[in-house]
Amino acid sequence: MNFSSKLIEDAVKAFSSLPGIGKKTALRLVLHLLQEKEEVTASFVQAIGVFRADIKQCRVCGNISDADLCTICLDKARDHSTICVVENIRDLMAIESTGLYKGAFHVLGGVISPIDGVGPEQLNIDALAKRLNHGTIKEVIMAISPTIEGETTIYYLSKLLESKVPVITQIARGVSFGGELEYADELTLARSIADRVPYSVHTPSAG
Amino acid sequence: MNFSSKLIEDAVKAFSSLPGIGKKTALRLVLHLLQEKEEVTASFVQAIGVFRADIKQCRVCGNISDADLCTICLDKARDHSTICVVENIRDLMAIESTGLYKGAFHVLGGVISPIDGVGPEQLNIDALAKRLNHGTIKEVIMAISPTIEGETTIYYLSKLLESKVPVITQIARGVSFGGELEYADELTLARSIADRVPYSVHTPSAG
Repeated sequence: MNFSSKLIEDAVKAFSSLPGIGKKTALRLVLHLLQEKEEVTASFVQAIGVFRADIKQCRVCGNISDADLCTICLDKARDHSTICVVENIRDLMAIESTGLYKGAFHVLGGVISPIDGVGPEQLNIDALAKRLNHGTIKEVIMAISPTIEGETTIYYLSKLLESKVPVITQIARGVSFGGELEYADELTLARSIADRVPYSVHTPSAG
Repeated sequence: MNFSSKLIEDAVKAFSSLPGIGKKTALRLVLHLLQEKEEVTASFVQAIGVFRADIKQCRVCGNISDADLCTICLDKARDHSTICVVENIRDLMAIESTGLYKGAFHVLGGVISPIDGVGPEQLNIDALAKRLNHGTIKEVIMAISPTIEGETTIYYLSKLLESKVPVITQIARGVSFGGELEYADELTLARSIADRVPYSVHTPSAG
């Protein structure tokens, strides 16, 4: 496509670098912004730029946060003696939107995957172990996608943490095996938290 | 959806204000930017912000341009005695990407539409009339979508310009009637430029 403008070309390239946005869609978005007042683009750019520059990680759980601690860690109405371990923020949001879980979270930032070069030291695991050192945590729920990498991560974590917490559970396998947690429907996801069972090393999928 | 972050919420709102982007897609884009390095977002924001602030209109034809004159008006290899009148930049780009047309353009910025309160004075028509005053233009091609408003605009322009230019043509109606020009396939669009016929007031669709 011939844009007759380097500025337009750069803007189209910027949009089409995002996942799921092709050149034609990118051009439509750029021409949409061109038609709107300049302030519309200014406030769009402002929101995206500020979000990325100012966003923080909660220093306790690794959730995204506007401040040092996230709204979930600061919420006194929640049960902070239960920690739900999730792979990423999308999974945390998915569980939050079921409205069923009222405990705390811990965001790993990924799962152990030797193929992708992700070992335990790349994940937010040390901070999780430290949270258990105080002895105030009664239960750790493994809400990790039931994939090979997820299973490996659950196994690793259960070995690491079993001496530090009375109960380690995993979410019920209502979620289909091999699937990604973030795409499960809310009902299935809610049930799988309600039906959580004690984690057993020898029969990881028995629950 | 509960975002637990005002910054994320604002960024999601910003993306979902764009046409064709819903809340779920917006969240996916925001979380994608969050995963990438901060510079990725910075350069994205830079490209979009700069484009909107610095983009100019070509002072001759009304095309978008990085400078005072657009690349088409500056191109000495093109035939500047033929002007192709289009409704908007999308239509200009569609014709340019056929690779067939080697003349100049004139972008109206819309069509006459009394219902939408768009009269001739809101469009880039004065500048078109002035371009014809020099007597160097041999042909004006009406490449305007064959809708009611498009027909009205073609009629208005032909009456206004007929004394100033030897030939007024319109693109062949290979484009289906009532359709929008920007969605025509390139072959149909290329043929409709090759098959252009003299404009006749009494039988506007006879060509």
